[in-house]
Amino acid sequence: MTMRRLVVDMQSSAPHMRLPAWAADEITANTPDGWEVAHIATQSRSLGNGTNEPSAETLAAIPAAEAYFGYGLTPPLLAAAPGLRWAHSASAGIGESITPELRESRVVFTNGAGIYAEPMADTVLGGVLHFVRGLDLAVRLQAASIWDRHPFVDNNGGIRELSEYRVLVIGAGGIGSAVAQRLQALGCTCIGVRRRPALGIPAGFTRVVGPDALEEVLPLGDITVVAAPLTDGTRSLLDGGRMALLPAGAIVVNVARGPLVDDAALLEGLESGRLRGAVLDVFSTEPLPADSPWWQHPRVLVTPHVSGVSPRRTWQRGIALFMDNWRRWSAGERLHNVVDLDAGY
Amino acid sequence: MTMRRLVVDMQSSAPHMRLPAWAADEITANTPDGWEVAHIATQSRSLGNGTNEPSAETLAAIPAAEAYFGYGLTPPLLAAAPGLRWAHSASAGIGESITPELRESRVVFTNGAGIYAEPMADTVLGGVLHFVRGLDLAVRLQAASIWDRHPFVDNNGGIRELSEYRVLVIGAGGIGSAVAQRLQALGCTCIGVRRRPALGIPAGFTRVVGPDALEEVLPLGDITVVAAPLTDGTRSLLDGGRMALLPAGAIVVNVARGPLVDDAALLEGLESGRLRGAVLDVFSTEPLPADSPWWQHPRVLVTPHVSGVSPRRTWQRGIALFMDNWRRWSAGERLHNVVDLDAGY
Repeated sequence: MTMRRLVVDMQSSAPHMRLPAWAADEITANTPDGWEVAHIATQSRSLGNGTNEPSAETLAAIPAAEAYFGYGLTPPLLAAAPGLRWAHSASAGIGESITPELRESRVVFTNGAGIYAEPMADTVLGGVLHFVRGLDLAVRLQAASIWDRHPFVDNNGGIRELSEYRVLVIGAGGIGSAVAQRLQALGCTCIGVRRRPALGIPAGFTRVVGPDALEEVLPLGDITVVAAPLTDGTRSLLDGGRMALLPAGAIVVNVARGPLVDDAALLEGLESGRLRGAVLDVFSTEPLPADSPWWQHPRVLVTPHVSGVSPRRTWQRGIALFMDNWRRWSAGERLHNVVDLDAGY
Repeated sequence: MTMRRLVVDMQSSAPHMRLPAWAADEITANTPDGWEVAHIATQSRSLGNGTNEPSAETLAAIPAAEAYFGYGLTPPLLAAAPGLRWAHSASAGIGESITPELRESRVVFTNGAGIYAEPMADTVLGGVLHFVRGLDLAVRLQAASIWDRHPFVDNNGGIRELSEYRVLVIGAGGIGSAVAQRLQALGCTCIGVRRRPALGIPAGFTRVVGPDALEEVLPLGDITVVAAPLTDGTRSLLDGGRMALLPAGAIVVNVARGPLVDDAALLEGLESGRLRGAVLDVFSTEPLPADSPWWQHPRVLVTPHVSGVSPRRTWQRGIALFMDNWRRWSAGERLHNVVDLDAGY
């Protein structure tokens, strides 16, 4: 009998993206009956857009594969995999993998959505409090060894209590809901924007609206968190016109993808003093170029695309998700996190 | 009929401690029958220990006063106020006002405990997340315009999810409870230490122990928050021996009073790498001297005694508390926030 083959292709050059040994062991130990696993030993080279260039070893193993577990999917990989039926990407953002070749392939594509929601929401909360409680002022004064209480106690200095803020979360998926659950528990009222509001109000939100009502709710976004997938429909979602609708003193957070926010409009909002601050984990170009205005801007907190980092927990969540999906696939059951190729996430 | 006199003495040299005009108006408009109010116009000079030096205007108005609303109480003020029966301090920390003269005076002394709990707890949460989510690394890399994900993704780099931490709050009063309520809502288990555990378990805590069990619970303090009043019994509460009982990677927060924590022991814990970080809002000497090791320490977040700052809300809370107490005093009812002179808070 021919064995069904899974190719595991996660020897990333980045240590934190490399499959841990315990995880490889768990895959081997829990292989469903009738399956064989090809563990690719070659380091995969990131193409810098969320996908990896397939190695020669991968291209040699993939023709007989039914399933693939890696980071994204590229047309060369698909071209070499006529028998591929299911691919699971360990990452959550997979917009770059959605190619005409993937659509034609009819491969079922699942992703790591949800794995990173908890640590990302923790980072969002920390970034928001950085501005709400004046820690931006504190770190600059500390760097200069200056004790000065005046900028904190000034009524217009922008120091507030978190519960004074109304929250708008653009993208009410797993990440957006994890953000809203935290802020709601801390006394904030959270409005969500989601593509299909008819699907319901996720945990943490008191109200959810569709994209057509975005302009109506932007004036309520004292804290505005961008947590939507990057698709053709969401590029420059927060442009100059919409940024101008945010309330004075607003804090803008982007932990999704850089191109969702118009850089020039954000800079203008910060320079004019209308925005209190911006927490940016993602950028139009990564790594962020040395001449970017964000680096030295006093009201911007830059984190290098690490909001989802959680060394102790994300691999556990990701492997548990993959193993459950593999068991389901093997048994012909419905999978978790099937990517909607038309929606783009 | 002789009018009962209240002296309002809050024209502080620090703008944020100066009674707002609307608050003075509220005191005037809601003066109970039979009372007159002497509003002191002279700026009071802070003695730097939580009390103010009484001005000549205050000393002239106080002999006929039954009640006093200001910052703390000094022996010269008490000596000039034979008829004083009640004094309310706008601040929460009043240890420095507890003198032999106050004890002998039999003045009922109430304070602003609770007014600052909400903003202080927000600052504690922001400070904790600063280290939990690696924002300490981020701000230093940002200042140098360096994009480097390695220190974040390193498994030993100290980036965690908040809910991985166990929390110990030393001082389970209004501030400690506000801290615990936030951290509990975010998935942490909080143990409190209070002088009289028999009084019960305040909101936010799953367990409260007495000071005699401090050594037993310190190993559970992944996040250890000092929120106790400074008294003879709490000076150097967190000394070298107790600091050594904290778990590896612990984050220490002090928003109470500097002398509660032994500076040398804290520095040693940070230098040895055993502690992840320290959030310090209060210091043994304030303003913090220019040569303090805290200023330039990479794993210390210094805020200049501003954790309780909340320009929009603390005056509202403080005036509401005072007005309620004044009405109660006038009617012979029980007051809120009566300081226990023997306990020291």
